[in-house]
Amino acid sequence: MRLVQGKGCILWFTGLSGSGKTTISMGVEHELKARNCLVELLDGDVIRKHLCKELGYSKQDRDTNVRRIGFVANLLSRNGVVAITAAISPYRATRDEVRRMTENFIEVYVNAPLEVCEARDVKGLYAMARSGKIQGFTGIDDPYEEPLNPEIVCYTAQETVEESVAKVINYLERLGCVLNLSEAVSLDSEIVC
Amino acid sequence: MRLVQGKGCILWFTGLSGSGKTTISMGVEHELKARNCLVELLDGDVIRKHLCKELGYSKQDRDTNVRRIGFVANLLSRNGVVAITAAISPYRATRDEVRRMTENFIEVYVNAPLEVCEARDVKGLYAMARSGKIQGFTGIDDPYEEPLNPEIVCYTAQETVEESVAKVINYLERLGCVLNLSEAVSLDSEIVC
Repeated sequence: MRLVQGKGCILWFTGLSGSGKTTISMGVEHELKARNCLVELLDGDVIRKHLCKELGYSKQDRDTNVRRIGFVANLLSRNGVVAITAAISPYRATRDEVRRMTENFIEVYVNAPLEVCEARDVKGLYAMARSGKIQGFTGIDDPYEEPLNPEIVCYTAQETVEESVAKVINYLERLGCVLNLSEAVSLDSEIVC
Repeated sequence: MRLVQGKGCILWFTGLSGSGKTTISMGVEHELKARNCLVELLDGDVIRKHLCKELGYSKQDRDTNVRRIGFVANLLSRNGVVAITAAISPYRATRDEVRRMTENFIEVYVNAPLEVCEARDVKGLYAMARSGKIQGFTGIDDPYEEPLNPEIVCYTAQETVEESVAKVINYLERLGCVLNLSEAVSLDSEIVC
């Protein structure tokens, strides 16, 4: 027997490659697991492998990828799970489409200037895009459309990872998707078996 | 706040077209919802539309379809949801692959003789297959590989729908995926808010 703590939601991270989506989303996942929350991180690579193997990086294929992630995230969130997604999801209209077809959609804009992301270049992808080895790379020769009204913005050029993670967790607590720690502990000892 | 009743599982219906998979799975879904269980029926057509639009009915495409359903069902079941799937899923090896990669996999073989399914021909597909308008139709010119050790068998040529549904629900109760009705009521009044 298990207690579902609060309601499910979709925590939709969006931002440039290298902005810090994966790092923050993993930090949030870790914190939620520590609180015994139901949480699934829908990793972009895993989703591509299992649900979108045939898709490339054209606008149409990226949109299909985003819609599939949204479909799965919705199945999870409506069953009480915090579904975390961390794909670049560069197009505003497609993100808004997912927002409309789901409940409790929380857009987290991981905002770092292009030059910062490019300087980090963790995966070496910006270098490849600049040299023309990759085409259609978001921020270089494909657009990134910033969210206009995101629920949360993490400024990863200024904030630490811990500050960004705390910002997200606080939001979830206020929304009732996650119990705050003191409540969770008291409930744990009373009911969960 | 919500109580998750018991552990999640995958209820994997398999059988010929017209065997009764959809009817029984909808009956099970209805009964579980009435008991306030977390349940998702992954309808074959909906999954094809949202996750597999590009797939056809070749062996390879059917296998990919089954693997995607299995991937999503697993995400749900490990978060306490009874995930019900009702695709024909004709190939034994692919079903067994899903069984190995998931937990609490319950195979429900909806067993009706081909001639019974063909006589029902609810969607008119058997007639089209016989006349050659559809190729590669399971049971006609594409194989259906019966489960060797299914957890449950529903003989829909002999049983009523209610009997088949009850068989599945009883199994879920014994496995602890669903509380039996008396337990659920007593817990409801005590804890769920």
